[in-house]
Amino acid sequence: MFHLIQNCDAARRGEFTTPHGKIQTPAFMNVATAGAIKGAVSALDLKDLKCQVQLCNTYHLHLRPGDETVRKLGGLHRFTRWDGPILTDSGGFQVFSLAKLRNITEEGVTFASHIDGRKIFMGPEESMKIQSNLASTIAMAFDECVQNPAPYEYARDSCARTVRWLCRSKEAMNRLNREPGTINPRQMLFGINQGSTYEDLRVDCMKRIRDLDLDGYAIGGLAVGESSEEMYRIIEAVVPEMPMDKPRYLMGVGTPGNILEAVRRGVDLFDCVMPTRNARHGHVFTRQGRRNLFNAKYELDDTSLDPDCDCPVCKNFSRAYLHHLFKSGEMLAMRLCVMHNIYFYNSFFEKIRGSLQNETFERFYRENLEVLNRRI
Amino acid sequence: MFHLIQNCDAARRGEFTTPHGKIQTPAFMNVATAGAIKGAVSALDLKDLKCQVQLCNTYHLHLRPGDETVRKLGGLHRFTRWDGPILTDSGGFQVFSLAKLRNITEEGVTFASHIDGRKIFMGPEESMKIQSNLASTIAMAFDECVQNPAPYEYARDSCARTVRWLCRSKEAMNRLNREPGTINPRQMLFGINQGSTYEDLRVDCMKRIRDLDLDGYAIGGLAVGESSEEMYRIIEAVVPEMPMDKPRYLMGVGTPGNILEAVRRGVDLFDCVMPTRNARHGHVFTRQGRRNLFNAKYELDDTSLDPDCDCPVCKNFSRAYLHHLFKSGEMLAMRLCVMHNIYFYNSFFEKIRGSLQNETFERFYRENLEVLNRRI
Repeated sequence: MFHLIQNCDAARRGEFTTPHGKIQTPAFMNVATAGAIKGAVSALDLKDLKCQVQLCNTYHLHLRPGDETVRKLGGLHRFTRWDGPILTDSGGFQVFSLAKLRNITEEGVTFASHIDGRKIFMGPEESMKIQSNLASTIAMAFDECVQNPAPYEYARDSCARTVRWLCRSKEAMNRLNREPGTINPRQMLFGINQGSTYEDLRVDCMKRIRDLDLDGYAIGGLAVGESSEEMYRIIEAVVPEMPMDKPRYLMGVGTPGNILEAVRRGVDLFDCVMPTRNARHGHVFTRQGRRNLFNAKYELDDTSLDPDCDCPVCKNFSRAYLHHLFKSGEMLAMRLCVMHNIYFYNSFFEKIRGSLQNETFERFYRENLEVLNRRI
Repeated sequence: MFHLIQNCDAARRGEFTTPHGKIQTPAFMNVATAGAIKGAVSALDLKDLKCQVQLCNTYHLHLRPGDETVRKLGGLHRFTRWDGPILTDSGGFQVFSLAKLRNITEEGVTFASHIDGRKIFMGPEESMKIQSNLASTIAMAFDECVQNPAPYEYARDSCARTVRWLCRSKEAMNRLNREPGTINPRQMLFGINQGSTYEDLRVDCMKRIRDLDLDGYAIGGLAVGESSEEMYRIIEAVVPEMPMDKPRYLMGVGTPGNILEAVRRGVDLFDCVMPTRNARHGHVFTRQGRRNLFNAKYELDDTSLDPDCDCPVCKNFSRAYLHHLFKSGEMLAMRLCVMHNIYFYNSFFEKIRGSLQNETFERFYRENLEVLNRRI
C-alpha cells in the first residue's frame, strides 16, 4: 500500500507498506546481485548504512545457488539475513544482456547460461515461480528489455508481448501465492512499462497495464543506450499515465543528477549498481563531488573522504589510508568505499525526502544537480 | 614489562604491559601485512574479534606506501586506526623470502623490490629507522632468517652476524627513541634467536642475546622447512635459556596443534597468516575440526560454521550461504570466513589462558590437540 505524504509539483514524498516493513520514498534499493552486496558488505552492515531495501537478481540466483536451493533454505531473507524488504527483478534484463544465444518466442526466452552454457527456458510463469521460491517481498513481472535505439516496429511488437507476459505473470503469481508451502504468500507484483524511446508506445503500454491493479509500476528499458534527455522526456510522458496511489520505480538509474531529475518528475523508487561498482574502482561520491582515490594527491591527505559525511568510513579512515589500500590491492579498500557510497546514496535520498517534506526540494535540486556529478 | 601470573610446568600465563596497553599471554598477533588484515577486515572489526595485537610488515610498508609517508601521517596507529599494541617485524624474513637478487654483507642486505625491482639496502639501522617511522609498539631486531635445512657452517656464521646485527639494532633504537619528533619514544625491541635446527647454535645464540636486556625474545627461523618434531626439539632446547621475566615469541607459528605444543613448552606470543590465508580459500577452523566450504555437502546446510562459536559470523550466517558466496566468487565469503578464523584463533588463546589460570591446561591440551587439526 502506497500512502502519499507530500506533493511538491510532480515530485512526491510517500510511504510504501510491504509485508517486510515500510519504505519511505523516494528510496534507493541497494543491489545485492547474488544475495550479497559486491565488495564484502553483508546484510548486517546495511543496518548502519541507512539501507531500506535490498535488490537481488533472479537470473543470477536461478543459476547459482538455484532458486530451489534458496527455497529449501527458507527464502532470501533467511538466506542473506536481511529482514527488510527485498525486491527481485524478473531475470529479463540479464537474459537479454548477459546470457548468450537467445531465442524469443511468445512463450518466453530460451538462452544459454553465461556460467556454463547450459540451455535454460524462462517465461513469465518460470520467472514468477523462481521469484516465489526466492520469496522476495516484491517480484517484477517478466519483460523484454530492448536496447536503445530500437526500430519502432520491434519496440512495438516487443512491448505488446511484454504486456501479454505481464498478464501471465499476474496470473502465475496469484496462483503461486495461494499454493500451500509458499514462503511469502503476500508477495507483491510490479508491472513494467516498456516502449523504448517512443512516447506513443510508452503511453499506450502504461494505459494498458495500469488497470491491472498491481502493487506498483516500473519504467524499464531506460538507461540502456539513450541520452539522459531522452530518458527524462520518456519519464515525463509516462508518469502522468501512472496511478497516483502506486509506487513508481525507474529501473537501473542512476547518477545523483539522474535521480534528482527523475524525482522531480514523480519517480519514487530507484536501483543502480553505480555506487557499488564505482566504489570498487576507487570512485567515491561526496557532497563536494566525485573523487578518484587512485589519484596521487591523496597519498598524504589525512582527512576523511567527505568531511560532511557521518558514515562509519568517514568517521574513522583517511583518504591517505584508502589510497594506500587501493594501491596495495587490499580488499578492504573496496569494502570501505562501497560502504561509503551506499551510505552516500541512502542519505542522499534521506535528504531528498526531507526537502520534499519541508517543501524545499526545488532549492535542494538546484544546489545539488551539478555539484554531485563534478569530478574533484 | 612482563608479569608472570601462573605457571603450569613450562607453560605460562602472563601479562605483558606495552605503551599501547596490556597483552594477556599466551596471545595471538593478528597479521595485517600492509596495514590491513587481508580479506576486507578493518581495525574497527578487530574489536569484535577478540584481537589483542596487530602485526604489520616492515618490508611491505617500506615499499608501499613508504615508512616516511606513514610517519608524516602520524604512524601506524593513526594510519590504520588500531589503538592497541602493534608489532612490526624487521623486514628480514621478507627480504629473504620475497625479494629478488639478494646480496648479504656484514653491513646488511641489498635486494630488489618484488613490486618494481628497484634496488634497496636494508641493515639493522635502516630497519630500526623504518620501524621508528612506522611507530609500532614493538620493533623486531633485523635478522637473517635461514631456510631449513641449512649447512651447519652457514647457520653458524649467519647466526653470529644476526647477533652482531642485534647489538646494532639496539643501539639504533636507543638513539631513535631519543630523537625529537619520534612518534613513539617508548618503542620496545625484541631480539631474535636463530641457529637453524642446531641445538648448540640455538643455545649459544640465546645465551649471547639474553644479557642485552631487551623487552622480549623471539625464536625465529622455525616453521621454514623443518618438521614439527624438529621445531619442538629446538623450542625445548632454547626456552630454558630464555629470561623468565620477558615474553617469548615464536615467529610465524602455526596450526592450533603447533600452538598447543609450543605453549606447553613455555612460549607466550605467536603470529601466523594461516587463519586469514586459509579463510580466503574457504578453509575454516572450528572446535570440531577444519571445514572446506567449497565442499558440496554444505549447499543445503543451514547451520552455522561452528555451533559452539559466538563470533559475528556464526551468530548470523549459515554454511549454505557461505558455500554459495564462495562458489559465486563474492568477496563477502572471504571477509566472513577471515572474521570467523580470526575470532577462532583469538578465542582459542583465551581458552588456553583460562586453562592455564585454573590449572587445567594439560587436559585442554589433550582434548584439543588432535581434534582441531582434523578435516571434517
